[in-house]
Amino acid sequence: MSQQTIQEKLGYPKNTKLLILHGDDIGVSHSQNMASLTALGKGFISSGSIMVPCPWFPEVAAYAIAHPEADLGLHLTLTSEWKYYKWGPVAKDKAISLSNNKGFLYDDLDSLGKMAKLKEVELELRAQIDRAIQFGIRPTHFDSHMAGCFFNKEYLKIYIQLAREYHVPCLLNREAFKVLFNINIDDLIVSTDVLVDKVFMAYPNDYKQGMANYYTKVISSLQPGLNCILLHAAYNDDEMQAVTIGHPDYGAAWRQADFDFFSSEACKKLLADQNIHLITWKEIKEKLVK
Amino acid sequence: MSQQTIQEKLGYPKNTKLLILHGDDIGVSHSQNMASLTALGKGFISSGSIMVPCPWFPEVAAYAIAHPEADLGLHLTLTSEWKYYKWGPVAKDKAISLSNNKGFLYDDLDSLGKMAKLKEVELELRAQIDRAIQFGIRPTHFDSHMAGCFFNKEYLKIYIQLAREYHVPCLLNREAFKVLFNINIDDLIVSTDVLVDKVFMAYPNDYKQGMANYYTKVISSLQPGLNCILLHAAYNDDEMQAVTIGHPDYGAAWRQADFDFFSSEACKKLLADQNIHLITWKEIKEKLVK
Repeated sequence: MSQQTIQEKLGYPKNTKLLILHGDDIGVSHSQNMASLTALGKGFISSGSIMVPCPWFPEVAAYAIAHPEADLGLHLTLTSEWKYYKWGPVAKDKAISLSNNKGFLYDDLDSLGKMAKLKEVELELRAQIDRAIQFGIRPTHFDSHMAGCFFNKEYLKIYIQLAREYHVPCLLNREAFKVLFNINIDDLIVSTDVLVDKVFMAYPNDYKQGMANYYTKVISSLQPGLNCILLHAAYNDDEMQAVTIGHPDYGAAWRQADFDFFSSEACKKLLADQNIHLITWKEIKEKLVK
Repeated sequence: MSQQTIQEKLGYPKNTKLLILHGDDIGVSHSQNMASLTALGKGFISSGSIMVPCPWFPEVAAYAIAHPEADLGLHLTLTSEWKYYKWGPVAKDKAISLSNNKGFLYDDLDSLGKMAKLKEVELELRAQIDRAIQFGIRPTHFDSHMAGCFFNKEYLKIYIQLAREYHVPCLLNREAFKVLFNINIDDLIVSTDVLVDKVFMAYPNDYKQGMANYYTKVISSLQPGLNCILLHAAYNDDEMQAVTIGHPDYGAAWRQADFDFFSSEACKKLLADQNIHLITWKEIKEKLVK
């Protein structure tokens, strides 16, 4: 039994190429909401995750209530990276070690790691989950904005523990955690935890060479297993340009390029040609995480 | 000496028509910031005020630092009236009686008046002023969003006291306070407080009949004294439409109409033809409130 592939555990043939097409950062802005929820509603992407501390969170909560079938998880957030548009911890002063002297979450992981008390990290993550539930969201999975929850092994333990406690799968990948964070997750997981075999996300160099090139290459060479592409869909409009001002990477044009590729006929054809089966976190939750 | 008109106190001839053209709600959204700060920068309006608890507050704070000459006060905010885009008190849990069970300021003044503890109203207003100063803003005046600070005489006392304490003028008008709030401000003011003789603001009926009609009428019949027109300049774009969704009044098109009128050649000509002198709160502060 232990030799079953993840595809088989999910009821698919052994060598199926499963893919979660995942829109990050929903809730950060109206522009991100409109593009990501359009992509989700039209089936251009399969899944997305929500940033609870952000200003446009109530808009996506209303969408989630109106669309209970939508695969929406929580993009657990410990940072606030933009210049003029920022947010603080949901737990407010109870998570004061997570915020700078202006009450905003830190811009980057290094400051977070230096300043945050572990107890308050847990308290803040719980506050975000409970707030999502209070607003009527039934999260299908957890992942983490800017990999905040993967900062070190202690953060990761909390993240995995919360996923178990709330009965949802969370984004876990052996290779990425080893390469990017030098964390061996084998020490932390048990046999019932779900692992993603491969995670892909465009980096600045990929963007420079054209998103269509990058994603075409990723999708064309996708292997059997449970795969996940993380993308950031928003419109290249005034609001998104202002949110991302001064940041060369992951800006408004980048997010529009993500939307454009995944809403294209070329993408649709490529997925079909490669016999790729889109899957949701919701399906994974329902089949494997009771 | 007590027979001097306000114009004379300010160093103008006795019968000058002084006018503050005032943009409210700066900071509420990027759209409001861009339209209002464009109008301010180009001299279409003379003054504006900032909502400290709102998501786009840091953007206007950066503008204020870069433009120390700009006449920017604080639009002291005790309500959060939109549907999917909301904000809570700056004082967070220390002003918990001002917020609903989701941590947002109440939608309307009635709920505020029923629920808020007076001590926490004062604490929240102080927190907003101190936060503005922390961000580098030097407020030239105070006024109040949705007239929250004018809800009753106790609120008004705090508002006037804070203006004196921070050495700024605040928007006070004998007639409006009597008619709209049934408050006789003569009990609250002293001879050094500055009163505006007439305050004008478009109401839904005025909008329906066309903003150009309304403002042309107001400006054409302006009397000598210190006058103030309160307006709300934003662009009728995706963001502002989403902020104001479900609200027929003071919506995105309304705000665009305000911007359009005050940026028009017709408005400029009308102000000149009527010998109207635009004045700032900053000038009033410097001359009359030391």
